[in-house]
Amino acid sequence: MAGSSYGTLFKLTTFGESHGTAIGGIVEGLPANVSIDLNLVQKELERRKPGQSALTTPRKEADELQILSGIFEGKTTGSPIGFMIANSNAKSEDYLHMKEAYRPSHADFTYQQKYGHRDYRGGGRSSARETACRVVAGAMAKQVLSSIGIEFSTYVSQIGHVIFSSKEFFNLAEIEANNVRCPNVELAAQMTARIQEIQAAGDSIGGCIQCVIQGVPVGLGEPVFDKLHAELGKAMLSINAVKGFEIGSGFSSLGMTGSEHNDVFLSNGQTKTNHSGGIQGGISNGMPIDFRVAFKPVATIMQDQHSIDRDGNEITIEGKGRHDACVLPRAVPIVEAMAAIVLLDFYLRNKAIHL
Amino acid sequence: MAGSSYGTLFKLTTFGESHGTAIGGIVEGLPANVSIDLNLVQKELERRKPGQSALTTPRKEADELQILSGIFEGKTTGSPIGFMIANSNAKSEDYLHMKEAYRPSHADFTYQQKYGHRDYRGGGRSSARETACRVVAGAMAKQVLSSIGIEFSTYVSQIGHVIFSSKEFFNLAEIEANNVRCPNVELAAQMTARIQEIQAAGDSIGGCIQCVIQGVPVGLGEPVFDKLHAELGKAMLSINAVKGFEIGSGFSSLGMTGSEHNDVFLSNGQTKTNHSGGIQGGISNGMPIDFRVAFKPVATIMQDQHSIDRDGNEITIEGKGRHDACVLPRAVPIVEAMAAIVLLDFYLRNKAIHL
Amino acid sequence: MAGSSYGTLFKLTTFGESHGTAIGGIVEGLPANVSIDLNLVQKELERRKPGQSALTTPRKEADELQILSGIFEGKTTGSPIGFMIANSNAKSEDYLHMKEAYRPSHADFTYQQKYGHRDYRGGGRSSARETACRVVAGAMAKQVLSSIGIEFSTYVSQIGHVIFSSKEFFNLAEIEANNVRCPNVELAAQMTARIQEIQAAGDSIGGCIQCVIQGVPVGLGEPVFDKLHAELGKAMLSINAVKGFEIGSGFSSLGMTGSEHNDVFLSNGQTKTNHSGGIQGGISNGMPIDFRVAFKPVATIMQDQHSIDRDGNEITIEGKGRHDACVLPRAVPIVEAMAAIVLLDFYLRNKAIHL
Amino acid sequence: MAGSSYGTLFKLTTFGESHGTAIGGIVEGLPANVSIDLNLVQKELERRKPGQSALTTPRKEADELQILSGIFEGKTTGSPIGFMIANSNAKSEDYLHMKEAYRPSHADFTYQQKYGHRDYRGGGRSSARETACRVVAGAMAKQVLSSIGIEFSTYVSQIGHVIFSSKEFFNLAEIEANNVRCPNVELAAQMTARIQEIQAAGDSIGGCIQCVIQGVPVGLGEPVFDKLHAELGKAMLSINAVKGFEIGSGFSSLGMTGSEHNDVFLSNGQTKTNHSGGIQGGISNGMPIDFRVAFKPVATIMQDQHSIDRDGNEITIEGKGRHDACVLPRAVPIVEAMAAIVLLDFYLRNKAIHL
Repeated sequence: MAGSSYGTLFKLTTFGESHGTAIGGIVEGLPANVSIDLNLVQKELERRKPGQSALTTPRKEADELQILSGIFEGKTTGSPIGFMIANSNAKSEDYLHMKEAYRPSHADFTYQQKYGHRDYRGGGRSSARETACRVVAGAMAKQVLSSIGIEFSTYVSQIGHVIFSSKEFFNLAEIEANNVRCPNVELAAQMTARIQEIQAAGDSIGGCIQCVIQGVPVGLGEPVFDKLHAELGKAMLSINAVKGFEIGSGFSSLGMTGSEHNDVFLSNGQTKTNHSGGIQGGISNGMPIDFRVAFKPVATIMQDQHSIDRDGNEITIEGKGRHDACVLPRAVPIVEAMAAIVLLDFYLRNKAIHL
Repeated sequence: MAGSSYGTLFKLTTFGESHGTAIGGIVEGLPANVSIDLNLVQKELERRKPGQSALTTPRKEADELQILSGIFEGKTTGSPIGFMIANSNAKSEDYLHMKEAYRPSHADFTYQQKYGHRDYRGGGRSSARETACRVVAGAMAKQVLSSIGIEFSTYVSQIGHVIFSSKEFFNLAEIEANNVRCPNVELAAQMTARIQEIQAAGDSIGGCIQCVIQGVPVGLGEPVFDKLHAELGKAMLSINAVKGFEIGSGFSSLGMTGSEHNDVFLSNGQTKTNHSGGIQGGISNGMPIDFRVAFKPVATIMQDQHSIDRDGNEITIEGKGRHDACVLPRAVPIVEAMAAIVLLDFYLRNKAIHL
Repeated sequence: MAGSSYGTLFKLTTFGESHGTAIGGIVEGLPANVSIDLNLVQKELERRKPGQSALTTPRKEADELQILSGIFEGKTTGSPIGFMIANSNAKSEDYLHMKEAYRPSHADFTYQQKYGHRDYRGGGRSSARETACRVVAGAMAKQVLSSIGIEFSTYVSQIGHVIFSSKEFFNLAEIEANNVRCPNVELAAQMTARIQEIQAAGDSIGGCIQCVIQGVPVGLGEPVFDKLHAELGKAMLSINAVKGFEIGSGFSSLGMTGSEHNDVFLSNGQTKTNHSGGIQGGISNGMPIDFRVAFKPVATIMQDQHSIDRDGNEITIEGKGRHDACVLPRAVPIVEAMAAIVLLDFYLRNKAIHL
Repeated sequence: MAGSSYGTLFKLTTFGESHGTAIGGIVEGLPANVSIDLNLVQKELERRKPGQSALTTPRKEADELQILSGIFEGKTTGSPIGFMIANSNAKSEDYLHMKEAYRPSHADFTYQQKYGHRDYRGGGRSSARETACRVVAGAMAKQVLSSIGIEFSTYVSQIGHVIFSSKEFFNLAEIEANNVRCPNVELAAQMTARIQEIQAAGDSIGGCIQCVIQGVPVGLGEPVFDKLHAELGKAMLSINAVKGFEIGSGFSSLGMTGSEHNDVFLSNGQTKTNHSGGIQGGISNGMPIDFRVAFKPVATIMQDQHSIDRDGNEITIEGKGRHDACVLPRAVPIVEAMAAIVLLDFYLRNKAIHL
């Protein structure tokens, strides 16, 4: 059972390696007979695209979306939407030295061991380039969700030790106001400085992304195993470089007592506090959903590193190529896309509860 | 698409409410023609069972496992294993006051809104009682995994502010040496004291469970979406009261640089450090897998709480019944069971990679 | 990926061997908050039950349904419905001679080879006894479908060479009017005579079951792979002893030209003829669905047969035990149950097409 | 749950409409590190391609396969294989008259009713053009299966009333010896004559395809629901224009008694007769698998037909365009492809039975 699909009723299946002919996918279950604005989808791709600002890798990829099926006269037909994004500007020669090498904390070793054969160029299938396909499906899902009032606010809340503690809902303009995609101007500047410092040192740094979802109707989530936050957790942990996930009070709940933590009801069914993060018993309760996603510092650094090759020989990996010192700004649309994919899937699943 | 199943090739489907006739499930995909020691399964159930120590609820449940099919002459036949655990000692009258009430931070409100009808007795389907079924399937999976060298060490690493920082592998005797299931004797005593204090106050408290898995072969995990740690994350987040999950360096990676975080290879393919937590690119790399699971303080407390009923009337929920002030000790076998279910499933999935 | 589940949104998972403790299953996805009449379910079980008439095996099984969860105060809660039927009157000693024997055209050989271990008593998992679980789920599905106007008419249309050519919709009373469940009185008598003749000879005989479904809304079916008739075909072919399936014109279409076969539209969207059998392009078109299911003569006969044992030794299988010479009358509720399971699943799936 | 995927461990997901930009798909689960000869895949496409002989539509499509991912240096990497086939020579203007029209026994009406919006050009998603994607996946599966000794023989066994009764295994050269793909020279000539006669009359005709599979190991099939022949049945019934399926003795078993029908074992585990069609209890028994697939006469005829449009107005559909009077010759590779997809999937599933 290959792991190239995500979702059940709304489902994305992807293909493609970093330096192959193309990446792409098939979106199934997007509701029929709805308008999809492909310009908005392309815009989301551009938020993820490398080379978009001084904070990201100078590697340029056009990332131009081609729709192959399923949308006719601007509207979905209910048939699967095939799409592709051609790979271009792939300097595979940059990766020839990787053919036999196992880069530290990359997937070279595990892919080679698991499959016995791999496309080593640019990380092949293990490259985060595949996340562009997630952004495509997510951007479509967001349009549909927006039409029923579900809206997303996703932003960088931590870079290294610089922390923006907030569960507030910011609009897109506030988030896009700076390259780091942190809506707090002052902290964004500190984050930017920290990334530039790390960049100059040829190193990398991680951080945290906050996602807040408003307008979620009560009832999304399928206990006991497919609790809404469990699936959100899987969706986030499936993104490259993610090492942790927490919902609502998360790890900070460990320092609280039940009497402090319980969300007391108001008479309208809302709650005074929202330590539950909008989900109780695995089902959305109508309060905003909020979660955080921890990204480790990415493995590619511009420093020489000791490593081994396929035969176990000790080698030195040179720090070269075109990479991000910090992927957090580019990861914002990916987190949001995966959240939208999960939400639309559970919205459709919830419809099947009643005749 | 109901959420009562977990896994793909190795799959558990469960049924049952807290105070219904029985809980139970069907285990599919347990390899054929292997011996299963049902006493070991029953023992795992007893580690989860209420009333096992002064630290847990005095509510007594026999939790006696009945196998209905799939095991013949002590060995699996490859056919589905049906099992059930009768509900007994269910004092449903304790819950009559809950019929119309929505308890804070429970699932009463969300179940009622989602389904329009619910078994309110003892929390019904939303009760953590269903996790006994997970323990059954997990205990079977562990026996199979043990035969191929995969072993689990799961223990309490935090209660409130008392923290046992460790990624060490402890054996079962060390973990079972005290009621709190923390292998550090001194910290276990502090944790015990803290739980008793909370118990006396009629309140509740959360904590963290650490799981370490040894002997995992290289190659388990199905990128790009079904990364091994993504599925572990979902499995853990599907357990009642869990609010967070982290693998390897987890949230603490945010304070590191890439050059600090990267796991340098030894010539034998192992790594000097294990910030990756045994998984790289979503695939096990042969190093120990380690992750942490955050449990919030449970919602049931022995204090009066303000709340509402189905009609939005303000009510007071009295703190009564028989409950755990801290579920962590009883959650240890649940975490381990879910980890075993995921590992066996991915072990079988990995076999399908090659002819 | 074990094959114990059927359906996607409405799903049945079953367990149990012929002579084990019990058979049973879990029904997921039955719409929430609907009333289920369990007496009607039990009645369907009795139509399938052995020993119900002179035409069926004298073996008596109580087949008493026990609901374990998911129905509360007479209505579904949306939670999985666990159920079981205890095995009783299982004369396992009748099967001791089968422990090492491979009966011709049974599954003894294939189960032993596939799994390496099997419950040989009464055919174990390969016994048609498991179909009782299908009848339970189907009887629930039929109640839900009936509430939206979908009705089934299933009857025996052929026994050996006695053929009742009809695609008419008969009501339950007409079908139940005789033991053979053929609504044509005269042909039913001929069928009965033929079965008794075969019974007397210690032999067995096959036949055909016709199913007609009325009131199906336009739109059920999920091309391109999950066409409605493709799934109906799989559902029927999964029943023990079934060797063929045809929809609408079926195999008889081979003798027609397109101009004869095409179903011309009336102005109201209905068609003059219904060679399509109610399904076009894999999607129901609102006309009655009709299909036929071919059952071979069952393998158990009351005659001595030459065979082999596990070690390849030649043996003689004695014709003994309590068996049906013709399963067709008892297979009627099974065919209908599987049809209902498919229809309800596709009804729910079709809801997900639109927001 | 959209119906665009087939298979579980080996899985094909397809997209594309007849006159859209392209059709294509994603193949998951093809074993890693095996060589795939893409020329052989292209050759299979050419057996399905229109315009290949005087017996098929003069419509020419290049049907050139483009692999987008998953095959590197001639070998599979275990990553999903994305592929596409550009649509060319699509004379959409031929279909403008169909925009509002519902052609008899086509899917125009059902697609419009189900989805509310459709790509009407050339039948859109309901066109048999999508089966080219099945041929691609099937051709890959066949190469893998061939390496373990599983071989297919698929041929036309009936056109109208001309019947070639055979369950023999013919090799590819024998089948390809004539345009009709019937290995009996004399009957092939009669079939050809019949097709030309029908073609001249502007009508269409159906027929039957026989498939024989040799070298299948004992043990494939996952009872109780995913019996091997049940899945083969679904696979075949999912092909456009198929109305019936039978395995082994099929519908002709209705005229036999059990004592005639039972397949007596030889001491080597094989059977003297093969009425079971190579499958017992849903599991392959090592004997050749044989089944037949009934194709109705296709709906498109070169005659004027009475019909209705979207608004219920009575209209006349003119018989024009470029179509096959008989699709059987071109359907041979499609049947074989679907059989190969099912066999490889069950081969992989069977591996998961044992550790």
